[in-house]
Amino acid sequence: MTTTSASNAGFAHGRALRPSSKVLPEHARGHNRSLVLQTLYRSGRRSRADIARETGLTRVTVSALVADLIADGLVVELGQREETRPGKPATLLDLDRSAFVIVGLDLSEHSTFSGALLDLDGTISARAEVALAGSTGEAAVEKVVALAQQLVDQATVPILGIGVGSPGVVDLGGVVLSAPNLGWNGMPLQSILNARFGVPVLVANDANAAVLAEHSFGGADSDAMLIKIGHGVGAGLLLGGTPLFGSRFAAGEIGHVVVGTDGGAVCACGKRGCLETWLSIPNLIERLEEEGDAARTAVLREAGERLGIALAPVVGALDLSEVILAGPTELLDGPLAAATVETLRNRTMAEFHGSVTLRMTTLGQDIVLRGAAVMVLSGQLGVS
Amino acid sequence: MTTTSASNAGFAHGRALRPSSKVLPEHARGHNRSLVLQTLYRSGRRSRADIARETGLTRVTVSALVADLIADGLVVELGQREETRPGKPATLLDLDRSAFVIVGLDLSEHSTFSGALLDLDGTISARAEVALAGSTGEAAVEKVVALAQQLVDQATVPILGIGVGSPGVVDLGGVVLSAPNLGWNGMPLQSILNARFGVPVLVANDANAAVLAEHSFGGADSDAMLIKIGHGVGAGLLLGGTPLFGSRFAAGEIGHVVVGTDGGAVCACGKRGCLETWLSIPNLIERLEEEGDAARTAVLREAGERLGIALAPVVGALDLSEVILAGPTELLDGPLAAATVETLRNRTMAEFHGSVTLRMTTLGQDIVLRGAAVMVLSGQLGVS
Repeated sequence: MTTTSASNAGFAHGRALRPSSKVLPEHARGHNRSLVLQTLYRSGRRSRADIARETGLTRVTVSALVADLIADGLVVELGQREETRPGKPATLLDLDRSAFVIVGLDLSEHSTFSGALLDLDGTISARAEVALAGSTGEAAVEKVVALAQQLVDQATVPILGIGVGSPGVVDLGGVVLSAPNLGWNGMPLQSILNARFGVPVLVANDANAAVLAEHSFGGADSDAMLIKIGHGVGAGLLLGGTPLFGSRFAAGEIGHVVVGTDGGAVCACGKRGCLETWLSIPNLIERLEEEGDAARTAVLREAGERLGIALAPVVGALDLSEVILAGPTELLDGPLAAATVETLRNRTMAEFHGSVTLRMTTLGQDIVLRGAAVMVLSGQLGVS
Repeated sequence: MTTTSASNAGFAHGRALRPSSKVLPEHARGHNRSLVLQTLYRSGRRSRADIARETGLTRVTVSALVADLIADGLVVELGQREETRPGKPATLLDLDRSAFVIVGLDLSEHSTFSGALLDLDGTISARAEVALAGSTGEAAVEKVVALAQQLVDQATVPILGIGVGSPGVVDLGGVVLSAPNLGWNGMPLQSILNARFGVPVLVANDANAAVLAEHSFGGADSDAMLIKIGHGVGAGLLLGGTPLFGSRFAAGEIGHVVVGTDGGAVCACGKRGCLETWLSIPNLIERLEEEGDAARTAVLREAGERLGIALAPVVGALDLSEVILAGPTELLDGPLAAATVETLRNRTMAEFHGSVTLRMTTLGQDIVLRGAAVMVLSGQLGVS
């Protein structure tokens, strides 16, 4: 198992075997190893013969791959299955889900960085957080390091890797190209953490991490868009099970798209009527306080309508079947979500997009932490 | 070479080797065969040693693959290269670009189906067309068959396949799920043509065909959106070099997305302010005639602004770097295109999307025919 290299291999996985490069025997071997791991990860308690049947690989290939995986500490023998037929009973195998732990970090909250230790199933076994206290630049990076250190110190088994969901625009090498609130411009966070901790590190945009979590643990389709609404508004897009990054790694940056043709409030970016002026949580709370309880539903519906107006061309162009919202349930679920989906349906082709669904994430506030774990699982083991 | 099966293999190519299926030796072989063909297709006049060096395959593998390709009639030996160094001169190889011909059909025009014979470079060697004369349903299919027959009759070398760009929503099996103007609902056009002509047939949406042509022959990025403006308005999206089809094969159906929040004309679909009410060529011409020459620039700019308003969320969400327009140059190029790109830039994040470019296709009216040829090249040879 690779335990020192840091790369966004997980994201590239679906695109690793393209016609532009030759297929080497080691590609096939790595691919087939992931296939065995994936089978055990999804199903558990399988014999070598079961795995061969389910993957289509030969018994000989499966046995050789399993021997390596046992030697790496990733797979364990559970004992023999009770057989109803005569003959030697099969030995059952499973992924050793407690053999490694993953450090997940969520840097998307405005005042606090939070982190967790997660097992290979994405279950959280320990938590930690640090107050940001207005830190920016290198000082904010030191807060990240301190948070990771707290979690590393708590780990009692080897660390498979560190996954980080960061606000802003993040390239495929884990460099945060732009995160204005943190004062990061070209901050090589992945390399810094890799050098400090000596384990694989994967840094991605928080909404991209969130959509991966929703796909692995929340039942999202392999074509889905997750809208993360907090201090800012961003989207994570999964197309054919692969996250979309965009030509400058800025895919999903919809918070500063102008919505409608009837004006709107002036945005921090200088434009008028950006999606965030209607929908960011601070703006939404401010508007709710200004307008009072009587207008609560109207304010929430208006924000939902603006989200629907912004999303309609995206749903139409991509033919998405599912949109997922992540953020404060008490604000998003209810009139806001209802107005969003109504607006979406009213502004696209009923024949094809009338069945688009919109729902809240089922993963609550841990969605970025769990997405960060998926990045490590996918990058290091090829499973998710 | 497969010459009887019909499938959209070309579109699936980039996704053929995913972790969900094992890598068999024949996958690697097919993949490496495409790699050799692709090298010759792009560069031409290469020796076996050149190909080995450029692909990273061994000399032995390349020689075996080349022998098969020569036997299939796809590759020819050109004679020996003049060598400056001592030793046996290398034999140069090339794709035999005139060994096969492709039939391309464009069904996207309102009153005429047009078709062409194209060589493996996408060069058109013969043309044909049939007047639609109001035909719909089975009668319109018979027009397609008659057009294909005219072209097949003109071919003097074997036909590699038939590619068809159709209006409407087309699934991956070449069934036209919905093309209202032609009265097609679930029309299995690909199977019908395959049964009639006994060669591989690939049917896809016209805008999807067009974006493939622009990528192969027009210099488009591997992340690009092509907007095809004619009787209707549709988009073809290429992400990572792969066309996007969407959850119900309706990706790119943006013509009936409502634009803006200030009303607009009533659309044929019943909604008000759909993109097509501003931008379809019949609507645009009608508005130009109503308003007179003095208002020509204003009318064209307004249509361009509406296109920019509709595209801004898509450019933001996907972080596209390039948008390409296809349609009547005299209407689209100039004030309309200028207003579109200005609007796009004004309504997205300057930092990331300010450099988005917009241009007319360089392929003119033949874009769908040439895209249909790319589908066949990609599906049958794995080259494009």
